[in-house]
Amino acid sequence: MAKLEVAFSPDLYPFYENKEAIVVVIDVFRATSAICTAFENGVKAIIPVEKVEEAKAYQEKGFIVAAERQGKIVEGFNLGNSPFHYMNKNLFGKEVVLTTTNGTRAISVAKNSHQIIVGSFLNLTAICNYLKNEKRDVLLLCAGWRGRFNLEDSLFAGAVVNELSGDFFNELSDSALAAQTFYEVGKNDIGNFLINSSHRRRLKNLNLEKDINYCLQFDQTKVVPILEGSRLIPVK
Amino acid sequence: MAKLEVAFSPDLYPFYENKEAIVVVIDVFRATSAICTAFENGVKAIIPVEKVEEAKAYQEKGFIVAAERQGKIVEGFNLGNSPFHYMNKNLFGKEVVLTTTNGTRAISVAKNSHQIIVGSFLNLTAICNYLKNEKRDVLLLCAGWRGRFNLEDSLFAGAVVNELSGDFFNELSDSALAAQTFYEVGKNDIGNFLINSSHRRRLKNLNLEKDINYCLQFDQTKVVPILEGSRLIPVK
Repeated sequence: MAKLEVAFSPDLYPFYENKEAIVVVIDVFRATSAICTAFENGVKAIIPVEKVEEAKAYQEKGFIVAAERQGKIVEGFNLGNSPFHYMNKNLFGKEVVLTTTNGTRAISVAKNSHQIIVGSFLNLTAICNYLKNEKRDVLLLCAGWRGRFNLEDSLFAGAVVNELSGDFFNELSDSALAAQTFYEVGKNDIGNFLINSSHRRRLKNLNLEKDINYCLQFDQTKVVPILEGSRLIPVK
Repeated sequence: MAKLEVAFSPDLYPFYENKEAIVVVIDVFRATSAICTAFENGVKAIIPVEKVEEAKAYQEKGFIVAAERQGKIVEGFNLGNSPFHYMNKNLFGKEVVLTTTNGTRAISVAKNSHQIIVGSFLNLTAICNYLKNEKRDVLLLCAGWRGRFNLEDSLFAGAVVNELSGDFFNELSDSALAAQTFYEVGKNDIGNFLINSSHRRRLKNLNLEKDINYCLQFDQTKVVPILEGSRLIPVK
């Protein structure tokens, strides 16, 4: 018997805080999709940092550093949070430092939980299997957009609720029930369901339609990124 | 052309803050339903206060004071937030001071907006007509439960979005689109849609099923409660 809850924004995390829970950080467009892609392509570890200044400090020490703000690569960095940036042989076996507008902040706020893992449509089945095996309370933490609710992260949370809810995960929060309702409405045509979402419109204006379509694919990897200390590492 | 947005918790208000907007405060179970009922039954004004201590100070000055916490009347007070407490001839023409777990806090956080009004299923059509006439940005502010998302307030927000969205209210936040999706799923059997909601379960445990059924009725009053200074007053 375990809790299955959803926080629709990192700013709601304090109201769902549960030190016994595994927290799944969700930033579908695009941080957590990029992290899954990086590991599928052989990146050894990702060091998430909250601020651009921290990222710069790592860069000065010689680290490979990715930094995204407002959907764009921050000036002075070579990588952002497009999954396509991580399909790169030069990153194989390397550590990458990463800061993004929303995703890395969500990782940061949940640090007092039992464990943090990273979810996206790209590794949906892998994380659901992981959570079923671990048999613990689960909190799905949507990165949102600058504190606001967003459609794509909550839709993904609904996909996880849909897969997990049942005999064991039987204590669903209202937010989990709501996310599941979304997913039931949107599951047969996710792209169309998200067509009006604010973030999709934002990325489309930046000509990132290719990224969007990539991020909405199911089960492209079996990797479960897990935070160990200050590093995300891939577990299969 | 105006914005139509939903904040699913008072704690998300800062991310939707809009000094030009009319904020509709929503606490279906039961504060905003009780406020509508009080005005329909002739209460002259309601003074919402955030803390029990403030309510006590008013009580000592001789005011009629209602205070609810955890679904119950606070010890030492005669009224809570059941709509049935306000179907009372002794309150006709009187001012009532009110503090509740979630609803009065939501009123308090939105005080820098253009205007605050109070919504519930009981006055759904009345507030929608009011908002259509005012032709301004609208923020639907769900009281939630202690910072958390709840189903009944977001379902009601969806009912308002459903009624308003269109040519004039054409800038919908992701949260507004989500609330509308809920409402489309739940509208034909709201009671059943909410059957698993955490707050409904909480009230049911307190034997408040009668209150729940009352609060889920549409259009029992034409009153629009509007905050003027520190007082909610009824406008028809």
